[in-house]
Amino acid sequence: MSQESIPPAIDYSRVFSQAIDRLHTEGRYRVFIDILRNKGAFPNARCFAGHNGPKPITVWCSNDYLSMGQHPDVIAAMEEALHDVGAGSGGTRNIGGNTHYHIDLEGELADLHGKEAALLFTSGYVSNEATLSTLARLFPGMIVFSDEMNHASMIAGIRHAGCEKRIFRHNDLAHLEQLLSQADPAAPKLIAFESVYSMDADIAPIAAICDLADKYNALTYLDEVHAVGMYGPRGGGVSERDGQAHRLTVIEGTLGKAFGVMGGYIAADRTVIDVIRSYAPGFIFTTSLSPVLVAGALASVKHLKASSVEREGQHAAAATLKAMMREAGLPVMGSTTHIVPLMVGDPVKAKKISDVLLAEYGVYVQPINYPTVPRGTERLRFTPGPTHDEAMMRDLVSALVEIWDRLDLRAAA
Amino acid sequence: MSQESIPPAIDYSRVFSQAIDRLHTEGRYRVFIDILRNKGAFPNARCFAGHNGPKPITVWCSNDYLSMGQHPDVIAAMEEALHDVGAGSGGTRNIGGNTHYHIDLEGELADLHGKEAALLFTSGYVSNEATLSTLARLFPGMIVFSDEMNHASMIAGIRHAGCEKRIFRHNDLAHLEQLLSQADPAAPKLIAFESVYSMDADIAPIAAICDLADKYNALTYLDEVHAVGMYGPRGGGVSERDGQAHRLTVIEGTLGKAFGVMGGYIAADRTVIDVIRSYAPGFIFTTSLSPVLVAGALASVKHLKASSVEREGQHAAAATLKAMMREAGLPVMGSTTHIVPLMVGDPVKAKKISDVLLAEYGVYVQPINYPTVPRGTERLRFTPGPTHDEAMMRDLVSALVEIWDRLDLRAAA
Ligand SMILES: Cc1ncc(COP(=O)(O)O)c(C=O)c1O
Ligand SMILES: Cc1ncc(COP(=O)(O)O)c(C=O)c1O
Repeated sequence: MSQESIPPAIDYSRVFSQAIDRLHTEGRYRVFIDILRNKGAFPNARCFAGHNGPKPITVWCSNDYLSMGQHPDVIAAMEEALHDVGAGSGGTRNIGGNTHYHIDLEGELADLHGKEAALLFTSGYVSNEATLSTLARLFPGMIVFSDEMNHASMIAGIRHAGCEKRIFRHNDLAHLEQLLSQADPAAPKLIAFESVYSMDADIAPIAAICDLADKYNALTYLDEVHAVGMYGPRGGGVSERDGQAHRLTVIEGTLGKAFGVMGGYIAADRTVIDVIRSYAPGFIFTTSLSPVLVAGALASVKHLKASSVEREGQHAAAATLKAMMREAGLPVMGSTTHIVPLMVGDPVKAKKISDVLLAEYGVYVQPINYPTVPRGTERLRFTPGPTHDEAMMRDLVSALVEIWDRLDLRAAA
Repeated sequence: MSQESIPPAIDYSRVFSQAIDRLHTEGRYRVFIDILRNKGAFPNARCFAGHNGPKPITVWCSNDYLSMGQHPDVIAAMEEALHDVGAGSGGTRNIGGNTHYHIDLEGELADLHGKEAALLFTSGYVSNEATLSTLARLFPGMIVFSDEMNHASMIAGIRHAGCEKRIFRHNDLAHLEQLLSQADPAAPKLIAFESVYSMDADIAPIAAICDLADKYNALTYLDEVHAVGMYGPRGGGVSERDGQAHRLTVIEGTLGKAFGVMGGYIAADRTVIDVIRSYAPGFIFTTSLSPVLVAGALASVKHLKASSVEREGQHAAAATLKAMMREAGLPVMGSTTHIVPLMVGDPVKAKKISDVLLAEYGVYVQPINYPTVPRGTERLRFTPGPTHDEAMMRDLVSALVEIWDRLDLRAAA
């Protein structure tokens, strides 16, 4: 029984190295930029090693769209919770990790979406994965109808349910109806989609999708991750803006983007929430959100329910930047949202532009490449906030024009 | 095309209600206890609604084993990060959410386990799910050998990999070897196990499992979630205590238990970390850990690397409580760890004992029922910390003896 008796059957290291080599070959090996934001001075930040740093930079790709992660109310609430109850919850929601903050925030989120109840998760990713996989498993024969641009976390949830899945073309109602009408009328159905698609910056026709759900007796699941805090008079998302929230079975959101903190949630009828709470492994078997985060998110949600200044400032900044880019002849994509994507169409060029922006102009915007977007549609994605002023935008646009010329990108486009 | 043209094919509400009814019937519907811990006064806390509350309680079931969630260094580090950079990271690790704190903590964790690199996740659950599913998918034909008592998050990861799985009896080396020897020698293999099994309070034979891995050329994956911070001279877990860390392919841990904060991680060779970082959806497509949490965890890990007082205090408290319970004739399970489980064997009785403890004695310990443990092995699980003194233990044991007599549990056991 010596170790030599069985020769190594497989060279694990080679497989690992080859997996990394493939990324380099395709030009999509990811290098994380080492930054620290300066609280109170967003979008200013500090960049550490590399890129001619350490030096100050301007962040143009944060999903803390409204700078709520730096809001005095949020910071104060987190500081208070830190001193009142400590760093972590110390347990799962069922075993010691259910604090009064969690209960309060769930109440606040249910109210935000006009639903009976809400449930917190450690992230938006986990809320999608856990809820979709559990929902679909509950109904034998379930067919999930999924928009082709749905986020990786929704795709994971649907895949993990092990149910049938039909993919409809992005925001294409005719195709969705075609697929619904072809399915067995007796089969349980769920339509899963997003409101704001963050990489294409367009918005789903929520009312029309709910009409189809009514007609074909399907449940509906709406990811409002990029819309909560951003749309609707109280920040309830596009479903609030469009007056459709009551028609959706489940509305899902994050606490980590416009609300500026971290965590995810769903809002729905009491019974649906109770089912997910009781059956979803991704909810049950994990330490609950730190009460410090929950306290911060609570302050953020409350603030954005009452105040529209931040939303309006952000939407104005996005409109201005889009207009300036269009005027400068840059290939800004047709966005109907608060996000400003610029098409490049090549992973190596997208990374090059981003590198030059950081090294020469102190502008930080991450290239977006596969698998986040389809190959051949690599892009830069700008998220101007209420604190990006017009001078910053002018600097950004003139830097882009200079780089576009330098890299001969106009010809290519 | 009126809505009436197709009759409702399925009554979704009934399915949801029935799912909840099943839990009530089986006596395992979970009611979350609404508590707030008092920082600086752990294990004291406050209980809100119900249970003769609001009133002060003593927490006996926290996984913040060493009260690090209340440690001054941890609180100070979190407060500093909160004021220096704000509440959330504002992005995924690749898109704006990579802060200097993340890089520092990953360095610290790699060092803790004597590995080249480490990678942070939003939770221990996600680190298990994302790493195991990605590792196994990388090797076509992979067979995962999984201890039958492995945690739900490991089971999820293995299931999501869609690979072959062989379950070995808990900590049973002969059975593991039997399964390994029966498998195709050319097939890639991974042995997945835990060091401290938290519900049974026993420990895996790490060295012997690594011997089998060497013999059959298998990768190894060790969940040290309940052991990091708790075992080994620097808190590197049972693999450090046993001098085996260098033999494991991946060591996984949490920042939410002994380290007192929230988040998860893996430590491994640089290439393995790079592969998971580059391919795991659960790592890529989610807002990174809040820098506030990361700063707190960094302080906690550093402290427990240098200080053994907390570990020793906790282990002494656990030994004392076990001895007192055994002496009082309570059915304490054979624990070789810092956890003290008391067997009840019935979900309704376990809940009843827990309810009486809270309502009449101000003692909070959660009943552990299915699916966390197998049906028929329902139990109470006590986690004495360095700050639970002997008077508290005497009060607890006499309360348990009184309840055991009242509910006639001695006869039943
Ligand atoms: C559409 C969508 N859904 C869900 C998520 C995940 O949310 P979180 O970052 O809170 O995990 C993201 C991005 O991270 C997203 O873009
Ligand atoms: C063995 C084991 N692994 C992983 C986890 C998940 O860790 P986390 O709470 O950080 O998600 C837990 C408990 O929550 C656990 O008991």
